[in-house]
This record gives sequence, C-alpha cells and structure tokens, in this order.
Amino acid sequence: MEFSKIEDEKCPEKEDSGLAIQDDQLTMKEMQLLAFGGYGNFKMVQTERPKVASGQVLVKVVACGINFADVSARQGLYNGPTGAPSCPAVLGMEGSGVIIQVGEGVQELTVGNRVMFITMFGAWRECVALPANHCFKISDTMTFQDAAAIPVNYLTAYLMLFEFGNLRKGKSVLIHMAAGGVGWAAAQLCQTVPDVTVFGTASAHKHDIIKKNGVHHPIDYHTKDYVQEVKQISPSGVDIVLDPLAGADTKKGYSLLRPLGKIIVFGGANIIRGEMRSMKALVSTWWNTPNFKPFDMMVQNKAVCGFHLGYLEKEVDLLHNAVHDIMKMYQEGQVKPHVDSVWEMSKVGAAMQHIQERKNVGKVILTWDDTTAKR
Amino acid sequence: MEFSKIEDEKCPEKEDSGLAIQDDQLTMKEMQLLAFGGYGNFKMVQTERPKVASGQVLVKVVACGINFADVSARQGLYNGPTGAPSCPAVLGMEGSGVIIQVGEGVQELTVGNRVMFITMFGAWRECVALPANHCFKISDTMTFQDAAAIPVNYLTAYLMLFEFGNLRKGKSVLIHMAAGGVGWAAAQLCQTVPDVTVFGTASAHKHDIIKKNGVHHPIDYHTKDYVQEVKQISPSGVDIVLDPLAGADTKKGYSLLRPLGKIIVFGGANIIRGEMRSMKALVSTWWNTPNFKPFDMMVQNKAVCGFHLGYLEKEVDLLHNAVHDIMKMYQEGQVKPHVDSVWEMSKVGAAMQHIQERKNVGKVILTWDDTTAKR
Repeated sequence: MEFSKIEDEKCPEKEDSGLAIQDDQLTMKEMQLLAFGGYGNFKMVQTERPKVASGQVLVKVVACGINFADVSARQGLYNGPTGAPSCPAVLGMEGSGVIIQVGEGVQELTVGNRVMFITMFGAWRECVALPANHCFKISDTMTFQDAAAIPVNYLTAYLMLFEFGNLRKGKSVLIHMAAGGVGWAAAQLCQTVPDVTVFGTASAHKHDIIKKNGVHHPIDYHTKDYVQEVKQISPSGVDIVLDPLAGADTKKGYSLLRPLGKIIVFGGANIIRGEMRSMKALVSTWWNTPNFKPFDMMVQNKAVCGFHLGYLEKEVDLLHNAVHDIMKMYQEGQVKPHVDSVWEMSKVGAAMQHIQERKNVGKVILTWDDTTAKR
Repeated sequence: MEFSKIEDEKCPEKEDSGLAIQDDQLTMKEMQLLAFGGYGNFKMVQTERPKVASGQVLVKVVACGINFADVSARQGLYNGPTGAPSCPAVLGMEGSGVIIQVGEGVQELTVGNRVMFITMFGAWRECVALPANHCFKISDTMTFQDAAAIPVNYLTAYLMLFEFGNLRKGKSVLIHMAAGGVGWAAAQLCQTVPDVTVFGTASAHKHDIIKKNGVHHPIDYHTKDYVQEVKQISPSGVDIVLDPLAGADTKKGYSLLRPLGKIIVFGGANIIRGEMRSMKALVSTWWNTPNFKPFDMMVQNKAVCGFHLGYLEKEVDLLHNAVHDIMKMYQEGQVKPHVDSVWEMSKVGAAMQHIQERKNVGKVILTWDDTTAKR
C-alpha cells in the first residue's frame, strides 16, 4: 500500500490543516525510554502537548526515523552537546509532519506547512516543539516517510562528502554499512558526481540492491578482508573513507587512503555489539581507535576528519543550504531514500532490534499513523 | 634591470637551443652541502654533467628557489621519501631553465623547451637530469625567475587549499608566514574564489605589502596573540588554517577552527630557531604538537590534514592538473610570484640566512646567471 494513497484518504494532519491549537492543555502521546538498556525499556506515555516558545513551531508528527544515535542513546552511550539524555528520555532525531502552531517571530513557516525536521532527540512524540530553523518545508509530492528518512542520513552523507570530503570527478569512496541509512544516501550522492568509484561493505544478500543504488564494488565484510578486496581492485586505495565504525576499522580505513585522501569518522558502531551495553566492546573500540600525529600524517599526505551532525544544530546556513541542494536532487530524481520498513510507534523496540541486527536495507521508519505502518 | 632583457641579450640557454649535448663528459658546477650545519657549509664544486636516462631530460638551469625544506635539510632535519639526504648533498627542490637533452621515450618535451621543474633535492646544479614528468613547459612570456618561484610554493598552496581545504565562496583562511613563499601564493589563490576572508601573520613592517597581496587582516605575531586577534574579528574562528609551524601553534590553529573546519599541517618551522640545529626547539616542537583523537574530533566537527609536497612526486596527474590551473591563473594575471631577491648561486649561504631570519617578502631566488643576480 502506497503511503501517498493513505495521505489522500485520511492523513491525520489534513484535519488540522490551517488550524492553530487554541488549547495548550491538549494531551499527546510520546515514546519514553524509561532506563538505559534493552529493547523492552520503552513505554508509551500520555502527556501534555509542548508549549511553543518564541521562534518555535509545533509539528504534528507523522513519521520519524531511527538512527544509530538512538541505539547508542538507549544503551546510555550517547554523549551529545547537552550531555547524555537522562531517563525518562524521548529519543528520535528527525521526523516529518505538519505545522499546527507557530510561535512569535516566526516568518518563514505557517500552520499547515508540511515539513521535515531535525532535533537533538525528542522526535518520538505526537507533537514536537522546535526552533523554526530546524524545520524544512517539503514539496507536496514528497511522502512523509521519505521526508522522515532524509534529514539525518542525507545531511550526514552530504556534509561529509561535499564539505569535508571535497568529492569531485574521478574520485573513489569506501562506504561502510552501505545498505544502512547513511550508506544508502552516500552511495546515491556519489552518483551525482561524474566518474566516482564506490566501494561498499554489506552482507552478501544485500549486494544486489546496493549495486542498484550505486555501489560498484560490494564487499561482504563477514567473509572477506575489505582492505585486501579494495586493494585488489584499486592498489593505490581510495580518496575518501566514510567510517561509522571506529576502533580497528579506523586504522584500516586510514591505511587505505590514497595521497591527499581523507577518512571521515562519524560514529562508533563497533561499540555496539548486542542488546545491552558491552563494556568490552566499548573499551576495545576506544583502545583500538588510533590517535593521529600530524608529523606522521604529513609524510603520508592524509587527513582525518571527525563528523557529528548533532553538534551542527547551530550551523543554520550550512544545514539549510545542504537541505536545499538535497531537496533539489530529490525533485530531480537523483536521490531517493529507501524505506526498509515502517513500524507503529508502539513497536519501537522491535524496530530498533531490526536495525541493530543489521536486518534493514535503507531506512527504518516509525509512524504515529497505525494504518500506514507495515509492522 | 629586468630579467627578460637579459634573456634577450645573452641568455645562456639561447646558445644551446636546439642542440643536444654530444659529449657526456662535459663538466658543470653544483652547490654542495659538505656537512649538516651552518650557512658556511656550502661549497661550489666542479663535476661531471649527469647522464640522461630513459624517460629523463637534462635541464640547463637558470634559476632555483630556496625553500624551508632546504633550511631543514641543511640542519640535518629533513626526512624525505628517500630518507635524509647524506652529505655531500645537493639541495634545492625546484628550478627553471631550458631542456638541452632528451632521453629515450620522452615524447612531450624537446630540446629548447623552456621549463620549470620540481625535484626531491638536487636542483642547485648547472644541469639537472630529471624525469620528464617533473618538468612543466612555461610560456614564452614567463621569466625564469617567476618560473623558479612557482613549483614548490604554488603547488603546495594550491593542493592544500583546493584538494584538502575545499576552499569555496564565503570561507575564511588563516595563513601563517603570509609574507613567505607559500603564504604569498596562498593569499593570491584565496583571491581567486569569491568572498574569501584571509587572516595572515607577519611582522608589522610587512603588513602593507601582504595587504596588497590579498591578506585582509594582517596580524603581527610578535606583539599580538593571533588567536585573540582572529576571534575578535571572527568570533566563530576560521574554516581553514594553513600551518607550517607545528608545535603549540597546531593546537592554537585547531582551536580556531569553525565547525567542519580543517587545519593543514605542512611543516615544522618552529623546529628551526637559528643557524645551527636546536635540539631544544626540535624536542619542544614535537612535544607540543598535539595528537588527535577521532572521538574528540567528531564532537568538534574538525579535521586535521598532513601535507608534504615531497611525497607527492609520483602523483603525476595531480601535479600536472594543478600546474595547468596555476599556469592559467598566471597567464590571466590572477597569480604572480613576488621575487624578494635574486642571489648568485655562490652566495647561497647568505641567501639562506636571509630567508631563515624572515627578512624576505615572497620568494628568494638563486641564479647561475651572474648578470641577473642582484646580490
């Protein structure tokens, strides 16, 4: 069933379109993480709708994304700009929906606008109050599911490849977890530049689909040493490594860089090895992540970049320019999120297990609209 | 006196133009460093002309550049791809002249071509044998002095700003030693991109001239804390720091980076504090140069790049494409080396002291043509 059909029939925001909330006491549901730990630690809670401060808007949420940051936060491992979220916490860093209330001083958005948004957690609510500049209008033809799949993954991939990576014609890129959300976005963005060669790691059964998404050389990291595989095809290595893993993989990625190549470290997925936090994985990942010495880097002509979208909240121009470019590419059909599965918000634990066990291809979406959820 | 006039009158290469050397036993002079140490350790020596191997050309040298790499090598501190040069050594990493012999298999160059070249030392000779792909033809209107001033400084600045730095519209750059060879080139290259803000450190008496060369905010590092000065003008810092200093300045430069900013470390000038090698300066520079941890860099959204032109010899396409761009900009008048002074090769010690004591503005040139030397 196509989401867009549902939208036409009984999309919940249509009822609210054009209406400002009169009663601040209205309630809503939110998905709370009660304590750091396993998949079962979530609980749906009825609470008050947030008040809208000056410069903010209130979004009635239709769909949300799950990211590795949420997995990491659930285990108590996430350390964001405002520290680790403390429980009970509402996770979720992105979503889409319709603006139902506009705070003082907001010019560029009005009630009824369809938007996607980013937020430093707090997205898994029926209604989210946000700074207006963290919302981005979406076109009438974009589904809410696509919209919820874009902000974190596409901004991360875009800023890494085009700001840090300086991706240009003829370059080569190694994408880890190429079937994941960021990996999917990165492979597509690489295809918007002429003659870019893409290596991607993923389980063997995902190779066909990631090939169709622009990965020229899929590598099964379970059965092959990806360093050897890349070197066999390109003895001099690659120009860019996107590294969401950290630990020993950062050392390997760095070793694969061509002269003037860049490794961009943007996560520590190696820290996460099961449902519960693993101190062993944490310590071994930290221990194995190399430190870099400028004098060594100099004679190697290599670069190391650290990337974290969560700490770019205040870079409004940067984010808006990037979203503008991404939306243009979306309209032109150059990029298109792949929605792996859509889950009812009440099934967030199972959805998270699905992503954590690497069962997904592309984006895992949560929705408040039970009729559009497929699980 | 204009160098171009000399060329017309009695430019030495004109006599050789079109003539291949028949006699491999012909002698030439070269400037040898007899032992690591002070300015007086150089000696002019008569020796055989080098033989030209397959794929090589023989260049009759007119002008050569001095770089910090030569200063560092004189003190026994340089460690290049083939190890440290061992004495007696011929220093010099760039030059210009005329091709007087062409080895087997060389297609793109012929006897009589005016060229500039890069080499991993060995340039301070009357005749230099080089791989043909380390030579770049120069236009008829380019002087040999300009040509000798381009390869190391402009390639370094170009590759740092445009490959690593991803310099684009609206960005900001901090250039240390903005009156030096690389600094001069970098400030000019920044001006080829719209709306780039340039901060540059230099002694106060050089501020007027570097301002004319494109440095918007000159800072006297002798009397001011450049970190405070930059922050006063741009509280959020800068997008790119070009760091030829290392040591504590690398830490300061890193602290000045805006989100998604990059520091490019390309030298250790802080190691050099006088005529003789200073173990104290060496140790303190190494000690103070920070190591970088990817997990810290991530939450800071910053990048560290190491650059060393000497290790890019084999990147023929990269170098040729960059030279092509630089030559185009030179022809269009967008970039122009500033020749600080021209010294007879026999005065190399004094010329080196001049650059080492930071008395130069722009490039210090050595020449084999006594009549064009100004010192």
